[in-house]
Amino acid sequence: MEITRQVNLGMIGGGTVGSGVYHAVQQNADLMAARLGIKINVVKVAVKAFDERRPYPIDPKVMVLDWQEVVNDPNVHIVTELVGGTGIAKTMILAALKLGKPVVTANKALISAHGPELFATAQKYGTNLYYEASVAGGIPIIKVVRESLVGNHFDSIYGIVNGTCNYILTRMKREGADYADVLKDAQRLGYAEAEPSLDVDGHDAAHKTGILASLAHGFWVDHHEIHTEGIRGITKLDIEFAAKLGYTIKLLGIVKRVAPAKATKGKGKRAAGPRIQVSVYPTLVPDSHVIASVNDVFNAVFVRGDIVGDTLYYGRGAGKDATASAVLSDLADAALDLRHDTANRVPPFVAHETKGSVLPIEETVSRYYVRLSVADRAGVIAKVAAILSTAGISIASIIQPEGHEGETVPLILMLHAAPYASLAKALKAIGKLPSVKAEPAMLRVEDFS
Amino acid sequence: MEITRQVNLGMIGGGTVGSGVYHAVQQNADLMAARLGIKINVVKVAVKAFDERRPYPIDPKVMVLDWQEVVNDPNVHIVTELVGGTGIAKTMILAALKLGKPVVTANKALISAHGPELFATAQKYGTNLYYEASVAGGIPIIKVVRESLVGNHFDSIYGIVNGTCNYILTRMKREGADYADVLKDAQRLGYAEAEPSLDVDGHDAAHKTGILASLAHGFWVDHHEIHTEGIRGITKLDIEFAAKLGYTIKLLGIVKRVAPAKATKGKGKRAAGPRIQVSVYPTLVPDSHVIASVNDVFNAVFVRGDIVGDTLYYGRGAGKDATASAVLSDLADAALDLRHDTANRVPPFVAHETKGSVLPIEETVSRYYVRLSVADRAGVIAKVAAILSTAGISIASIIQPEGHEGETVPLILMLHAAPYASLAKALKAIGKLPSVKAEPAMLRVEDFS
Repeated sequence: MEITRQVNLGMIGGGTVGSGVYHAVQQNADLMAARLGIKINVVKVAVKAFDERRPYPIDPKVMVLDWQEVVNDPNVHIVTELVGGTGIAKTMILAALKLGKPVVTANKALISAHGPELFATAQKYGTNLYYEASVAGGIPIIKVVRESLVGNHFDSIYGIVNGTCNYILTRMKREGADYADVLKDAQRLGYAEAEPSLDVDGHDAAHKTGILASLAHGFWVDHHEIHTEGIRGITKLDIEFAAKLGYTIKLLGIVKRVAPAKATKGKGKRAAGPRIQVSVYPTLVPDSHVIASVNDVFNAVFVRGDIVGDTLYYGRGAGKDATASAVLSDLADAALDLRHDTANRVPPFVAHETKGSVLPIEETVSRYYVRLSVADRAGVIAKVAAILSTAGISIASIIQPEGHEGETVPLILMLHAAPYASLAKALKAIGKLPSVKAEPAMLRVEDFS
Repeated sequence: MEITRQVNLGMIGGGTVGSGVYHAVQQNADLMAARLGIKINVVKVAVKAFDERRPYPIDPKVMVLDWQEVVNDPNVHIVTELVGGTGIAKTMILAALKLGKPVVTANKALISAHGPELFATAQKYGTNLYYEASVAGGIPIIKVVRESLVGNHFDSIYGIVNGTCNYILTRMKREGADYADVLKDAQRLGYAEAEPSLDVDGHDAAHKTGILASLAHGFWVDHHEIHTEGIRGITKLDIEFAAKLGYTIKLLGIVKRVAPAKATKGKGKRAAGPRIQVSVYPTLVPDSHVIASVNDVFNAVFVRGDIVGDTLYYGRGAGKDATASAVLSDLADAALDLRHDTANRVPPFVAHETKGSVLPIEETVSRYYVRLSVADRAGVIAKVAAILSTAGISIASIIQPEGHEGETVPLILMLHAAPYASLAKALKAIGKLPSVKAEPAMLRVEDFS
């Protein structure tokens, strides 16, 4: 394919993100042409319906209803898939790749679930698949991890990668409000879906965290192996107590390299490769840490490399415009790669680690915040302490809020680092104590050490 | 040059940064080879002296004393210049480029002063010059601005790009300490040079800010055009008052796109191109803004693009290891470009804006914090207000700290936005008032709006 001064773009999807990309190209294609020497020109946009509601208008002359018209048009050099989901989107991307056309996508669910198959297809047909927009929207975290920090082992990655959850947690803290009330308001304002589970249960964050973990560690992380907890269980009480202790609660996607496990009896055959924790859960982070000041719908990814040390990348994690910026960056790379015939210069994924594995959540080690609802405070502390001691878990501090004598009252425990398996067992025993009146609430505490 | 599985690196400079890069290559070249398919191999390191003190050891077998041996070695594919300064370093880089060898440098002073000449030489000899490490150390801001945000106009960039200044300001705030005392301690700890002017007077920040401004706006900014103020004049009193008002003082490199000036009489011939403010000065930033929580030696660059919105990049701005991470990233690009013969894929600089100009500081508009030392407070406020009013500047608020009646006391004014020319004139008049006992202290206030 000869690309010199112009590249023709065929778009699939003309909804929120699609029209955002279309609009951004109209607005800044000349600027990009001045910088790159290649003008991006939209020749076709496949839409669900011509009169679909979209935030930016699309020229009716380029709209079509059949996505195959876009992919198969010999005049189309690059294809964007901005449809989303793991169904037809996969068919669309595979069709374009099989024609040797590079594809740019923002589809985190699809990459997370079917990345290796898509990458293999791109390679087989001598083209590339670009997905900067799939993680953390406008934050260029894919390129940062893959190119800018290529000289680093990734000791840890902590990401606020779901704007909906961060918005809800920010407002709960700021207003002392309940989860359910803020969620309702977020839905009204369009920051949360009517069916919010993809966001609030942590699944969207898990898709993104898995992609980052895979890129950072060189083996594809199956998204079923990612331990995922959402924010539904967070109460305003927890947010208040965390604040009193100097912490802010954030939903974090966490990727940590842990020391290789020692060979255990009977498992001698399995070569010990690098083990990484990959999980998503709400976490107490110290107010003094820069990630605690990432508020509202903003995303941020904290990356610790063995050479670079601590770094952080912050921006809008979603929305038509921020996502469009990431798509434009990929389009620039795709255009340059077409011009220079370098589709394999930076492949979509390099599986360079054959022995890596994901650490089961039971084996992960963390500090913990535990909130109990107790009837008889004086009596229960000794019993709780005994259970924890038996489990080998030390108590760092106990908070007993004032008031409410005789009633059921909260009791907060901050615990030193312990494996989750030990904690879970201890919590089960604690939950069975007669004076403990509700299931213990547990949150992990991260000090970034 | 045939590069398949190995690229040979010749290094000039084996001091702090040089030995950091050498060490990082030893540590992670295998990892990079797994990711890139190309192994980086250090074949020669030119050092000042074999027994020079360096934080990491360098294999004596690769050390040489003559930098020309490195550049001229036909076995050397890529050259790093980690000597610094604008003297011999320039000769070294030009010599390598003229042999068609790509050069990786961390030299902000040199790029700032002689960028265009170096870039032209690279282009002429069909090679490239990489300088990720020259701005903000381990933060990959060059690649972010040039590649990840290529689809954006840059509305504004605010950078904490000098770790020494940020360290001093952080400690002044944290400890309520004086500038001179913290500087002395910073020098003792190695965070400031014995001759600190390059850092504390803002020149180092100006080099970096100029490079960012040039990349963002497509014309090379002459570093003499960058209005630069340092932090020597900041008192603990200013830091205290700023804190009371909800602000933190940070030394910011600022790049702002301003509305094109209207054609004025007699200047009709000059075509109105984009005008940008490029300056370095201490600034009051709201505590609620994420950049206010960038502390100690950390750097951060806040970038607002017209598509992506607000983004921020945070990390260590200096030091042997963070700088090495940026150099490794450039080495990876250089190695890939050699392998794919794509030295011009992303050129070191694209001068795409022929009509751009730097706004004189007098025309820049800002909000201001002014601290006066006054003898007779009741009398002086009316006079100061009258002077400001005549200059067309509105007062947002006045703070009159308690105590010290009859003595010389501070009086703080927060002013609404005004051109600097107007403010400077007003301050001159205010300074001449009999009850104003010292030259007015002025700091700009940035609300990121």
